[in-house]
Amino acid sequence: MNILDKIMKPKSIAVIGASTKEHTIGSDIMKRLQEYDFNGKIYPVNPKGGIIEGLQAYTTVNEIPGEVDLAIIVVNAKFVLNTIDQCHEKGIKGLCIITAGFKETGKEGAELEKQLLEKVREYGMRCVGPNCLGVVNTHPEIRMDGCFAESLPERGNIGFVSQSGALGGGILNILKDLNLGFAQFISIGNQADVNAETALEYWEDEADVEQILLYMESIQNPANFRKLASRISKKKPILALKAGRSAAGASAASSHTGSLAGADKAANALLGQSGVIREYSLKDLFATAKVFANCPIPKGDRVAIITNSGGPGIMATDAVCEHGMQMAKITDETKEKLRSFLPSAASVKNPIDMIASAPIEHYKQTLETVIADPNVDMIITIYLPFLGLKDIDVAKALMEIKAANPQKPVIGVFMTKSEFFAKLSDMDVNMPFFMYAEEAADGLNRLNQQRLWMERPEGRIPVFDVDREKAKKIIRQSLSENRAQLTTRESIDVLDAYGIRVCKSGFATTEEEAITIGNSIGYPVVMKMTSKTTSHKTDVGGVRVNIQSEAQLRAEYQDLIAKLTEKGLIDGLEGVIIQEMVKGNREMVCGIATDPQYGPMMMFGLGGVFIEVMKDVTFRIAPLTDIDAKEMIKSVKAYKLLEGARGTTPAQMDQIEETLLRLSQLVHDFSFIDELDINPLLISEKTGEGIAVDGRIKVRLEEAKSALACECGSCSCCH
Amino acid sequence: MNILDKIMKPKSIAVIGASTKEHTIGSDIMKRLQEYDFNGKIYPVNPKGGIIEGLQAYTTVNEIPGEVDLAIIVVNAKFVLNTIDQCHEKGIKGLCIITAGFKETGKEGAELEKQLLEKVREYGMRCVGPNCLGVVNTHPEIRMDGCFAESLPERGNIGFVSQSGALGGGILNILKDLNLGFAQFISIGNQADVNAETALEYWEDEADVEQILLYMESIQNPANFRKLASRISKKKPILALKAGRSAAGASAASSHTGSLAGADKAANALLGQSGVIREYSLKDLFATAKVFANCPIPKGDRVAIITNSGGPGIMATDAVCEHGMQMAKITDETKEKLRSFLPSAASVKNPIDMIASAPIEHYKQTLETVIADPNVDMIITIYLPFLGLKDIDVAKALMEIKAANPQKPVIGVFMTKSEFFAKLSDMDVNMPFFMYAEEAADGLNRLNQQRLWMERPEGRIPVFDVDREKAKKIIRQSLSENRAQLTTRESIDVLDAYGIRVCKSGFATTEEEAITIGNSIGYPVVMKMTSKTTSHKTDVGGVRVNIQSEAQLRAEYQDLIAKLTEKGLIDGLEGVIIQEMVKGNREMVCGIATDPQYGPMMMFGLGGVFIEVMKDVTFRIAPLTDIDAKEMIKSVKAYKLLEGARGTTPAQMDQIEETLLRLSQLVHDFSFIDELDINPLLISEKTGEGIAVDGRIKVRLEEAKSALACECGSCSCCH
Repeated sequence: MNILDKIMKPKSIAVIGASTKEHTIGSDIMKRLQEYDFNGKIYPVNPKGGIIEGLQAYTTVNEIPGEVDLAIIVVNAKFVLNTIDQCHEKGIKGLCIITAGFKETGKEGAELEKQLLEKVREYGMRCVGPNCLGVVNTHPEIRMDGCFAESLPERGNIGFVSQSGALGGGILNILKDLNLGFAQFISIGNQADVNAETALEYWEDEADVEQILLYMESIQNPANFRKLASRISKKKPILALKAGRSAAGASAASSHTGSLAGADKAANALLGQSGVIREYSLKDLFATAKVFANCPIPKGDRVAIITNSGGPGIMATDAVCEHGMQMAKITDETKEKLRSFLPSAASVKNPIDMIASAPIEHYKQTLETVIADPNVDMIITIYLPFLGLKDIDVAKALMEIKAANPQKPVIGVFMTKSEFFAKLSDMDVNMPFFMYAEEAADGLNRLNQQRLWMERPEGRIPVFDVDREKAKKIIRQSLSENRAQLTTRESIDVLDAYGIRVCKSGFATTEEEAITIGNSIGYPVVMKMTSKTTSHKTDVGGVRVNIQSEAQLRAEYQDLIAKLTEKGLIDGLEGVIIQEMVKGNREMVCGIATDPQYGPMMMFGLGGVFIEVMKDVTFRIAPLTDIDAKEMIKSVKAYKLLEGARGTTPAQMDQIEETLLRLSQLVHDFSFIDELDINPLLISEKTGEGIAVDGRIKVRLEEAKSALACECGSCSCCH
Repeated sequence: MNILDKIMKPKSIAVIGASTKEHTIGSDIMKRLQEYDFNGKIYPVNPKGGIIEGLQAYTTVNEIPGEVDLAIIVVNAKFVLNTIDQCHEKGIKGLCIITAGFKETGKEGAELEKQLLEKVREYGMRCVGPNCLGVVNTHPEIRMDGCFAESLPERGNIGFVSQSGALGGGILNILKDLNLGFAQFISIGNQADVNAETALEYWEDEADVEQILLYMESIQNPANFRKLASRISKKKPILALKAGRSAAGASAASSHTGSLAGADKAANALLGQSGVIREYSLKDLFATAKVFANCPIPKGDRVAIITNSGGPGIMATDAVCEHGMQMAKITDETKEKLRSFLPSAASVKNPIDMIASAPIEHYKQTLETVIADPNVDMIITIYLPFLGLKDIDVAKALMEIKAANPQKPVIGVFMTKSEFFAKLSDMDVNMPFFMYAEEAADGLNRLNQQRLWMERPEGRIPVFDVDREKAKKIIRQSLSENRAQLTTRESIDVLDAYGIRVCKSGFATTEEEAITIGNSIGYPVVMKMTSKTTSHKTDVGGVRVNIQSEAQLRAEYQDLIAKLTEKGLIDGLEGVIIQEMVKGNREMVCGIATDPQYGPMMMFGLGGVFIEVMKDVTFRIAPLTDIDAKEMIKSVKAYKLLEGARGTTPAQMDQIEETLLRLSQLVHDFSFIDELDINPLLISEKTGEGIAVDGRIKVRLEEAKSALACECGSCSCCH
């Protein structure tokens, strides 16, 4: 069995540090456990013994007669390690350490927490906290409120993880008003052992938890989080509020990719790639949770709006369209049916305006008719109070129709007094109600987002055949000269070794060499002289473009030599660079930046002179799946340029996608790559290929040295 | 006196169509007037006479013994014209026509409404409606609830205009819950006479109305709205919810400016230039109104956050930073003072975390101390409930400190049960309270927006010395050939006549002509052949760039003629275009589009290949003030390119600004210009000037013909 069950579904709980003193945690925990009618045994533990909250207290856990699944520990921090030892002797496997005074207080506390974790691991226990609010399970067979918050939890389908205890308590306080309930709640506190990832995994197949909400200030193991969340979010929605966006320690990175990255970009990419719905405010987090709590995932994005008032109907339409969803095209059959009972002044086109006189019967019939329309995936029903029509009656009527037709999401917009919402919070509801149309549209948009994620293929991380040895050799050369920054030539060669399409070129010192290189590149080529004495190549005819053939290259070479000889400049000549001639004016950029917390991150977007100005770039955490790469390319505005706007050659999307995937493989193989820029990745007007014209790679020197020093042939850097 | 006073501040009201029949408008209006204790005389009028709501009814208005200021008309539409006649006979000047069945029902109704308006004008009356909910004035000396909504109005400082009657009713219903109140409310309905602009003007110096809220689906006279709103918004905030954004009949315009314009861009530009704070949802509209109702305009944008819980403090910080406001740097003096009473675990840096144990006394002392800090302009105070500390007590304590220190905005974030907010709605409050930190940050952002608007100079519309006659002549030429679209040459010449810096060029058929043109333009120039028979100019050497002198031009010309003769192509030659050679790779765009409702609209932004892809453009309604033009240039992302990013020559901002202002003058002078594009407006690398390299102008043919046909010398097209 999962040891977490000992914590979340205990049959018996010892409260170590239980107290008779009012307004202490040791007293409040005891009270909450009893008030909420815990379905198992509660054993207060206090060195003084006596009666606590009507129960016989034990002086140590060892005295407890029966088995104990969970110990909730509230003793002073200095006694915690000892208490854990005692729990171990008693055979307790589940701990919830509420006590504060650990990592959050500084170095000494962190040391104490380290020792705590060592004991937990050694004893094969699991531990929530320390420095947390507690744990909750509202399942009728469990009924555990192991928190010291003011309010008892409401029953519902949400699994909630909070990194802030205070916030968790605040939320427990307002759950009823929000018409929301928890299935389980874990206040992870300092997350020494149990963290958000543990909770995700635990709830993956927990039927009672139908959606997962996370309040996070940090993500402990981004790779593991991504692995778990992207799998679990396919089964149930995961909503996250990630705070600390602006704290963003601006990294001192010198590359484009690095300077555009910024800390929150990484978190955003990670959550997106994991299928987590990110909310930016608690208000929105709970609004979305309310929608998921009461709506099925829709089959499509076509929205119908039913209203008794024009203005709010228009506002709802605006909001639906602004989210990029479609206004459903009501079928003729539906229209006819609506016309059969609605007054002539009503509009049976979407938004369907039943006009102000609409009685309850019209609400019922209209909703019933519209739900049945095959062109409709989701419905917003708006009510404004008019004389004689009671809000709560309308709501009940809608819920009745909804109960008989559970297959499509329906959201109620009731612009009425708050009494209505207070009444609802005492009722069992089967659809979400909001005050304003925009909130309903936001909710439908989230449902649609979850639908798209669930329909999204999982993608795979391809492995390309690359010349890893060659790349290694080039990097070693740079390391041997103590250079963290590879030269342009080296950078391009590493890219080339990884099968990335680079601008081909070679250096020749004789006519025959030039011809060999020209022939191997293929024409047209550019020839550029390199000279120690002549800096203005163009002025002396040192740059020859658009050379179409071997014969022409030969002629141009001879002509160059003749001109330089004539001008007395031939002595300075070192040789010529023969370079593939790429024509194109679409400059993209791609690269890698390293986030201190999230690791290597891929960038793609519009390059060239516009890169810093337009910031039309997107990020994903490496490694990329093929689907990630596809989405990256499509998500920038410049995608239209790639598609072939204004008569340009459509870009080879597959090849660009492969470029990103090969880069991803590169940084996977050489994890010490700190920054990498391909700028520009020029889109060839001739072939539509993305060609790396310029590149730069920077490594973390010490890390690279130690990785590449190894020649064992079996560790990660060697295979 | 203002006749509107007769409607909004009447001493006596006749309800024409008053009724004893329950749940009719004629009955409800009578009830509301009496329930709300109208401070003047109420005269029910009904052909049957009798007693209505305890008052003697009159069979016609003429029978009424005293003077009548306002007639509220609820009779059937077919009797309305006659009723107006009777009102006129009685000397009534103020009408509020609630009756529906006019323009909103179609052609016949529109005709009826036209007649109605004619009578109103003829009789020197003012009229609210028809097809409206009524009017409200909550001033204690007036106390008029002339609406048939379910709820009585709450007293407050808001002047509210609603184009949707139903919505107005809905809002009256929830005012109390929102802790908001109206000073006056006008349901403008079909706005035959009184509209939003009338209300704005009426409320300009009305002390009772401290902020104005508008719900609009259309703006009747955009120019007048702009004139009024931009003046009045300097005195009191104007908030608007403009619905119907997505309805956007996509215009079939062929120009860039036109296709990027879109209907809502015009509304957005108009509201922005008028200093109107635009909200996109009712929720946000009311949240902002609540902030303006209880906060002074701040002196700056530095925000301090006081909290008893870390998580919400972080979330508030995120939201403040994301709005671009500053987190205040608390002075050392303040920090010291805070340290003197807060526990050591508290943080005295902003956000100031008093920690969970903070008692009421700490809230009071901390707020008092922080308000006094000269580095702080605005404050968010966060409360999460912890054992023993009651929300309402904390709120009262904060309000007490606030009352003694009214100079700075303070917003409370109370993450507590809805009961708290219900309690507040029964109290007099002096600061806004929200549930979530993000709402508080949104509110402060609006206060800051209003501050910036009030500090913004008014700007002026300069008049430049232009060659209007020349422009007229060019356009006449196009009209004479029935062309709505001017040729590129004509377009450029019109721009030139208006003093816009165009790329200089001329057409030559002989060597001497070419030299004359070249000399007048100044070197370097480009020479391009034009030929009837040769389409690929470049292939035959027909384009010569970078011609540096008269001598070189002469040589190139001769060489061209020789080459063409040699190739037997000389017969097709028409001549050569000699063009100024502008070097630069920053392509901007500017232009004019015509919105069917809002008229000519100016565009500015990034041009060239990126125009449609990046959509980095901004719009303003013409005419532009100098401040508008300045703001346009600064508001696009490409502004960084103009500033001289990546070593380019800084653009001449003044000259680009003048270009926009001259265009604005052009479309003012020739209001029939339908579309105008300058694309690109190339930024010269040499001088930083914006130079119109290509231009196109399209006019509305019939309108242009009739405007320019006139030669009277006195009408608008002639002077």
